[in-house]
Amino acid sequence: MALNLPPAPLSAENEAYFEKCREKLGFVPNVLLSYAHDDAKLTVFAAFYNDLMLAPSGLSKLEREMIAVAVSSVNRCYYCLTAHGAAVRQLSGDPVLGELMAMNYRAAELSARHRAMLDFAVKLTETPHLVEEADREALRKAGFGERDIWDIGAVAAFFNMSNRMASAVDMRPNAEYHGQAR
Amino acid sequence: MALNLPPAPLSAENEAYFEKCREKLGFVPNVLLSYAHDDAKLTVFAAFYNDLMLAPSGLSKLEREMIAVAVSSVNRCYYCLTAHGAAVRQLSGDPVLGELMAMNYRAAELSARHRAMLDFAVKLTETPHLVEEADREALRKAGFGERDIWDIGAVAAFFNMSNRMASAVDMRPNAEYHGQAR
Amino acid sequence: MALNLPPAPLSAENEAYFEKCREKLGFVPNVLLSYAHDDAKLTVFAAFYNDLMLAPSGLSKLEREMIAVAVSSVNRCYYCLTAHGAAVRQLSGDPVLGELMAMNYRAAELSARHRAMLDFAVKLTETPHLVEEADREALRKAGFGERDIWDIGAVAAFFNMSNRMASAVDMRPNAEYHGQAR
Amino acid sequence: MALNLPPAPLSAENEAYFEKCREKLGFVPNVLLSYAHDDAKLTVFAAFYNDLMLAPSGLSKLEREMIAVAVSSVNRCYYCLTAHGAAVRQLSGDPVLGELMAMNYRAAELSARHRAMLDFAVKLTETPHLVEEADREALRKAGFGERDIWDIGAVAAFFNMSNRMASAVDMRPNAEYHGQAR
Amino acid sequence: MALNLPPAPLSAENEAYFEKCREKLGFVPNVLLSYAHDDAKLTVFAAFYNDLMLAPSGLSKLEREMIAVAVSSVNRCYYCLTAHGAAVRQLSGDPVLGELMAMNYRAAELSARHRAMLDFAVKLTETPHLVEEADREALRKAGFGERDIWDIGAVAAFFNMSNRMASAVDMRPNAEYHGQAR
Amino acid sequence: MALNLPPAPLSAENEAYFEKCREKLGFVPNVLLSYAHDDAKLTVFAAFYNDLMLAPSGLSKLEREMIAVAVSSVNRCYYCLTAHGAAVRQLSGDPVLGELMAMNYRAAELSARHRAMLDFAVKLTETPHLVEEADREALRKAGFGERDIWDIGAVAAFFNMSNRMASAVDMRPNAEYHGQAR
Repeated sequence: MALNLPPAPLSAENEAYFEKCREKLGFVPNVLLSYAHDDAKLTVFAAFYNDLMLAPSGLSKLEREMIAVAVSSVNRCYYCLTAHGAAVRQLSGDPVLGELMAMNYRAAELSARHRAMLDFAVKLTETPHLVEEADREALRKAGFGERDIWDIGAVAAFFNMSNRMASAVDMRPNAEYHGQAR
Repeated sequence: MALNLPPAPLSAENEAYFEKCREKLGFVPNVLLSYAHDDAKLTVFAAFYNDLMLAPSGLSKLEREMIAVAVSSVNRCYYCLTAHGAAVRQLSGDPVLGELMAMNYRAAELSARHRAMLDFAVKLTETPHLVEEADREALRKAGFGERDIWDIGAVAAFFNMSNRMASAVDMRPNAEYHGQAR
Repeated sequence: MALNLPPAPLSAENEAYFEKCREKLGFVPNVLLSYAHDDAKLTVFAAFYNDLMLAPSGLSKLEREMIAVAVSSVNRCYYCLTAHGAAVRQLSGDPVLGELMAMNYRAAELSARHRAMLDFAVKLTETPHLVEEADREALRKAGFGERDIWDIGAVAAFFNMSNRMASAVDMRPNAEYHGQAR
Repeated sequence: MALNLPPAPLSAENEAYFEKCREKLGFVPNVLLSYAHDDAKLTVFAAFYNDLMLAPSGLSKLEREMIAVAVSSVNRCYYCLTAHGAAVRQLSGDPVLGELMAMNYRAAELSARHRAMLDFAVKLTETPHLVEEADREALRKAGFGERDIWDIGAVAAFFNMSNRMASAVDMRPNAEYHGQAR
Repeated sequence: MALNLPPAPLSAENEAYFEKCREKLGFVPNVLLSYAHDDAKLTVFAAFYNDLMLAPSGLSKLEREMIAVAVSSVNRCYYCLTAHGAAVRQLSGDPVLGELMAMNYRAAELSARHRAMLDFAVKLTETPHLVEEADREALRKAGFGERDIWDIGAVAAFFNMSNRMASAVDMRPNAEYHGQAR
Repeated sequence: MALNLPPAPLSAENEAYFEKCREKLGFVPNVLLSYAHDDAKLTVFAAFYNDLMLAPSGLSKLEREMIAVAVSSVNRCYYCLTAHGAAVRQLSGDPVLGELMAMNYRAAELSARHRAMLDFAVKLTETPHLVEEADREALRKAGFGERDIWDIGAVAAFFNMSNRMASAVDMRPNAEYHGQAR
């Protein structure tokens, strides 16, 4: 990471969280290490992120990862494209789908549901001031409920933050992601 | 709010938080009410937000609010321009400064520190893929330390999320903001 | 004003005009003072402006001011957003409407007439080369006549000039505008 | 013209003006005919225009026409590119210069003065909110005085209006322009 | 030409080709001279170009030139606007049509066929990642067959190359083009 | 491929070329199959392409592929990112380099030579009308000669064509590319 911020002592909870990452993934994602200069910031970031991506939702985990990658493609975020591209490949079992999300989701043969979901997420990314009721209506017509619309918006909005945080401090993805699920 | 999401029962902590808002501000900000359809989401959002905007930092609270408004101006976010424009007016005691941040920060007569801070925040908002080491160097030359750079990036990144969340679900600012500190 | 252009001797008519401004508004708008380096330029500018904004038209004075602010929002013109934002607040008696025009007119709950009017003005501002007969047809469908279309175009076009003139010479709005009609 | 606005009875002065156009140019420019639906509007437009383009100035008439064409090129205005492209060809005696202004002024071999003048005019056209003191300083370094800066800004700003007025009402250039000074 | 690349000895075929140009056009187009620093590159470029613009096609030669100019207008390519603008004037016998293609094809009164053709070419130029099956369907509805769609795409794509090659090495159009077919 | 163009009978040379592809790569690249609806078009395309990417040049084959991918990233071309991303991985033996070129070349740690090369190629892609002598000078300062500048321009220009051709007819990359050299 380009910023020179020494790691802070971590709470027992955060130490345990990192340990769990090492067990489950084989490494601690660099985004978490980058927040580890401040234990409180790490705590609130991880809580926010885990609720967003892992809590029960009308959107599957794969769908949330697809949004993450499509948004990160607009913003050309090397960190998020690498880490979440791997997640799409793993969750879908379809390496090509991960590439399509990262390169141009419009080239993918998507269900009407997924196309509507990504069109909304990308419009929210590129021109948030143009998103209006008609855009929410398009999601409803594609079968999404009110809470689903919240969740699509929340994931797309989050990665617009995360892409910019990665860029602001030059986060680098863990090398492990590149070869995963090819 | 355009989404029809009924409020969830809130935890005692969140009820107390809302009560504190009513005492201190006279109202609960609508952004918090919009998250109140899900107690867990409200909790993690408030924790994340309060750390970002209120925790100790090399950036003053006013500086963080200036970034919030300059970013929201790029994204043309009615909610955030209204709520955080009021905060700039209140914290600075300078109603004109709030207007300048909302309209075009380049028209303000800013210190070199503030100009560099807002230039970074706005570049990160408009073209995150173009932010590079030279941009961080410009902040260092303006006197910011490593942790300050993190904080500038974090506030700018956060409002790129918050602007889009407000747009995704059509959040409306509390009417009280408009007349504050004029 | 950033340009160092000494005021010229003014004609009796222009002196009287300034006097009338002082009586009616309490001050001479800085845009007029900026033209006062050349009596002839002041004369033709004021004549052009007053015909545009005050002559009989199918558009009310408020509607013309709404267009002025929406266009100035696209161009992020500090002078015009401040001066004409105040005019919208005063003429409408609705301080929030002034804010909405300045921040993002799409967030306002507008009549179909006003939405069509502002959509045309903003498209003409952002992408004049894409305005075609279909855009005029949309105005006709919203109830506007031929002369109304001229007037919408004329006001939108004028503020594209005025925004740029303000930017070219760094015009500063009179301080009085900020607190008006809040 | 795409708008169906019947010509108004004209004042003696405007009739004389049209007669003078016919004598001098062989035709009345369609922009004037388009304003002729309202005698007062024609009067103030012609006065404003003639002061801008014909009054004494540190900018030659050719320089003002070069700005007109470079601005109209950004806005892709068929009317103004045609009418003012012909003016550049005539005033310069250089048919290629007219083409270069209309196509891409950066491809022309310009003096430092003209390059600075057009760079300012085009920046003011494309991103007026980014024009700052440094841009005026660049003009001063190229030898322009305070009043010259006003005039460059005024001509560039005017054609941002005129291009949009032409687009709003679909003005069509007189056929005579196309073959002039080739 | 801005690059200092000495001409290579040419093959007999390329010498004959240049001689044919001189006979037929009165000059060798500068684009060919610019490739003449390398005989092999000249050969493959000329073969590719001549197949594209001269081989049998459902598109007339004029239609292919119209696409060339409309694409070059988006890219503001001085070389191609000049050379192919002359070709449109010559092939159509309509000097105004050449101007319209170079300035703003939307201002021309085009058949539905030509409007669809140019809309596709310009969308492919400006936002190739947004071209989808619906865009091809619009061409089919305007009467184009599968091979015609290929040819429209191929001509538009080619001039996106050629515009950039001209810009990369600063190709200058032959002076003869300017006055042709006015 | 989205266009329904039946394959044409191929010349012996083109049949042999396809056979060579099958031997060397294991498949015929779909871009060649897409041109195979017309033997002459296939011939001139292949000749042009092979000269560009394989003929002697001051640019290595890897450098030409790096340009191809960086340009295709701007244009978000699924076909070219997939096929030429694989080529960068293979030629460099560095899978991460292929990803960086496809996602955001600015995030790669590049030599000054490669950074200058890609900056030129990407500027030529995004804003060809802004490329001027200063841009060529930057290449010369990075050590490139006149012919190298031609070659950088030629490769960048070519992929601006090829990306658009792929988009116009919806070319799909061969499945084999995805897993290569991971």
